[in-house]
Amino acid sequence: MRQWSLPELVRGCAEAGVRHVGLWRGPVQEYGAEAAGRLVREAGLGVSSLCRGGFLTAGDAAGRAAALTDNRAAVEEAAAVGTDTLVLVCGGLPPGERDLRGARERVADALAELAPHAAAHGVRLAVEPLHPMFAADRCVVSTLRQALDLVARFPADRVGVVVDTYHLWWDDTVAGQLARAGEGGRIAAFQLADWVTPLPEGVLTGRGQLGDGSVDLRWFRERVDAAGYAGAVEVEIFNPGLWAREGADVLAEVLHRYRTHVL
Amino acid sequence: MRQWSLPELVRGCAEAGVRHVGLWRGPVQEYGAEAAGRLVREAGLGVSSLCRGGFLTAGDAAGRAAALTDNRAAVEEAAAVGTDTLVLVCGGLPPGERDLRGARERVADALAELAPHAAAHGVRLAVEPLHPMFAADRCVVSTLRQALDLVARFPADRVGVVVDTYHLWWDDTVAGQLARAGEGGRIAAFQLADWVTPLPEGVLTGRGQLGDGSVDLRWFRERVDAAGYAGAVEVEIFNPGLWAREGADVLAEVLHRYRTHVL
Repeated sequence: MRQWSLPELVRGCAEAGVRHVGLWRGPVQEYGAEAAGRLVREAGLGVSSLCRGGFLTAGDAAGRAAALTDNRAAVEEAAAVGTDTLVLVCGGLPPGERDLRGARERVADALAELAPHAAAHGVRLAVEPLHPMFAADRCVVSTLRQALDLVARFPADRVGVVVDTYHLWWDDTVAGQLARAGEGGRIAAFQLADWVTPLPEGVLTGRGQLGDGSVDLRWFRERVDAAGYAGAVEVEIFNPGLWAREGADVLAEVLHRYRTHVL
Repeated sequence: MRQWSLPELVRGCAEAGVRHVGLWRGPVQEYGAEAAGRLVREAGLGVSSLCRGGFLTAGDAAGRAAALTDNRAAVEEAAAVGTDTLVLVCGGLPPGERDLRGARERVADALAELAPHAAAHGVRLAVEPLHPMFAADRCVVSTLRQALDLVARFPADRVGVVVDTYHLWWDDTVAGQLARAGEGGRIAAFQLADWVTPLPEGVLTGRGQLGDGSVDLRWFRERVDAAGYAGAVEVEIFNPGLWAREGADVLAEVLHRYRTHVL
């Protein structure tokens, strides 16, 4: 809902009967994290998650220190805005590097550094596996299995995973991994978007409205339910066509699609 | 080498010391499969593979029958042009469908129909797992593990897999699966391209010249060698920038990059 300011978003969601909003750091920082949290609470809503920390794969000491500083700030912003969940997009391969295994190990090292700080602020780190097409430039954690192997090094109440249908729908092992995530109490957030083609240049903003694409969204929702997840369901669709339309119309359409294709 | 006609390709490869060429059905059909095979042989070259059959996921009887007919013709073209390897791109989800599991099962059914015909012509079917970003529109087989599970239903000398670095590089389980493929004698072809970003619209033609991207090509080559693969190495780079250049220059550059980044 990039077309809406934070107050517009909160008012629009409250009027539409939506009870939780996922927020992004940029708008939260502009508005002030504490003020944003107050705004949401006073409208009777909750903040389901703050998006996003991460980018933890820098190979040099300076880059690594900068990332840790920024992620500590993100933890504090999450606490200030009133959510217990900080979504992490782990970062891609640094320019010129080809060592995916090394980059993945650096993510684990960074989580070990950040998890105690997050726990002290009542915030759980939520590692989001991103679609393999983002492995080079955004996230070296590409499957739910890989994310679960990674977070298994930490207590479940400190580090969990994000289940996003857009990133995981293609994976024929995902049903078993969703059950595993449930058994371990690892599902920290559940996000929905549909897969549509052709992908646009850069692929980031090619997500589809619920029901427009190839993803069996209800199948996912049922499995996430069965895994014991009882938190909010976030709809996260990066799509210029949706951003160009009137916010209330888009929100109403999303809710209609949700009832038709997800519930 | 889309800028070259078939005779130019054969002459250019022979002059550059390349001993095998992978061919595509379109140019082979235009030239005539038997004549194309003679052209290649008379230049002292071999045809490493014919690309491609597949698209076996149609849900309706007519679409299914048409696909089988086309794939039988592809088998015959492979035999006529003088290769023992027909690459299969299995096909995506039919429009409006969301049942990936069903589509994958239809691929297995089609392989069962085609494998005896291929064997009778001395042709091995080579199932190519494609990057998960193609799961909707090109290939529902997305990982090497999945491809190996699929082909395990058939004798190894009839149905193998294609290992393509572009499609598999992101997968943290690929080393084990390459070893498994070797043990089973399943590697029918080995193809190279590098991963570069940003991806172009439609993502198909965004492959990178060897050494320009994120893939540890040498790591792959060493593992494919260790898996016992002794066939040709194919370089397959869909890239309008390379197609726009003089063919001999591109081929010389590929050979230089091969020596630098792969050997």
